[in-house]
Amino acid sequence: MPMSSTRTTADAAQDHADTLAVAHAAFGQFSHGLATGDWEPFLAMVTDDFAFFFPMGEYQGAHTGRDTARAFFAYVRSAFPDGLTVMLDRVMSNAHTVVFEFRDEGVFRGAPYRNRVAVSFDVRDGRIAQYREYFGSDGKSY
Amino acid sequence: MPMSSTRTTADAAQDHADTLAVAHAAFGQFSHGLATGDWEPFLAMVTDDFAFFFPMGEYQGAHTGRDTARAFFAYVRSAFPDGLTVMLDRVMSNAHTVVFEFRDEGVFRGAPYRNRVAVSFDVRDGRIAQYREYFGSDGKSY
Repeated sequence: MPMSSTRTTADAAQDHADTLAVAHAAFGQFSHGLATGDWEPFLAMVTDDFAFFFPMGEYQGAHTGRDTARAFFAYVRSAFPDGLTVMLDRVMSNAHTVVFEFRDEGVFRGAPYRNRVAVSFDVRDGRIAQYREYFGSDGKSY
Repeated sequence: MPMSSTRTTADAAQDHADTLAVAHAAFGQFSHGLATGDWEPFLAMVTDDFAFFFPMGEYQGAHTGRDTARAFFAYVRSAFPDGLTVMLDRVMSNAHTVVFEFRDEGVFRGAPYRNRVAVSFDVRDGRIAQYREYFGSDGKSY
């Protein structure tokens, strides 16, 4: 086998580090989107065949495409026009996927909103290929 | 500094591997509990100050203690007397915490039940110190 096609432990460690770096950058833009409604920096980091899963409401289920994601994030903004603040608790990863566990808070229809959330980002070729969101609370407490 | 207190990269890698091994064993017993209602093997793996978070229903929120967990799992069994089947999709980790993303399915009040779930296990001294559950769907689809 030629050296150039030999995968080493160091290669795998570098791939994992690259995955983490891309996902951290994307999560920074994801948090920025939640806070400000400016989702274009996040959308610039997703693949053309980007897919996402959301747990409830109008966008419950699986969706694909950057334009669908843009419409979804506009919908999120309409629900939280003052934005959501993210408090990151921990980050877990493997070579391809990074999970961010966080709490968020804001105002939903005039009432305090608080949730526990996990988002899972699949990284491919330096971009986010899929994101899956999970809710750990009821929007009233964390 | 004496060698015995010097932490090396190899030590950290071993700690991470130990965390993964404990969490995988616990997740096996967690899946066994969901399938069979036999939760004692999982409960034998939790710390005395075990805490858990559940997203909705009667046990929504934070709870502590093995006996509370035992009552919670009996409640889960009462909701799914025929059990839930787990399909594990992926596992992400850091040195202390392991997240399992899976889908599950079963029967809830006579109707098909399907969900997307993430559970996050914190490992301490070879046991599960905390588990947090997150729902990614509505119980009707995944």
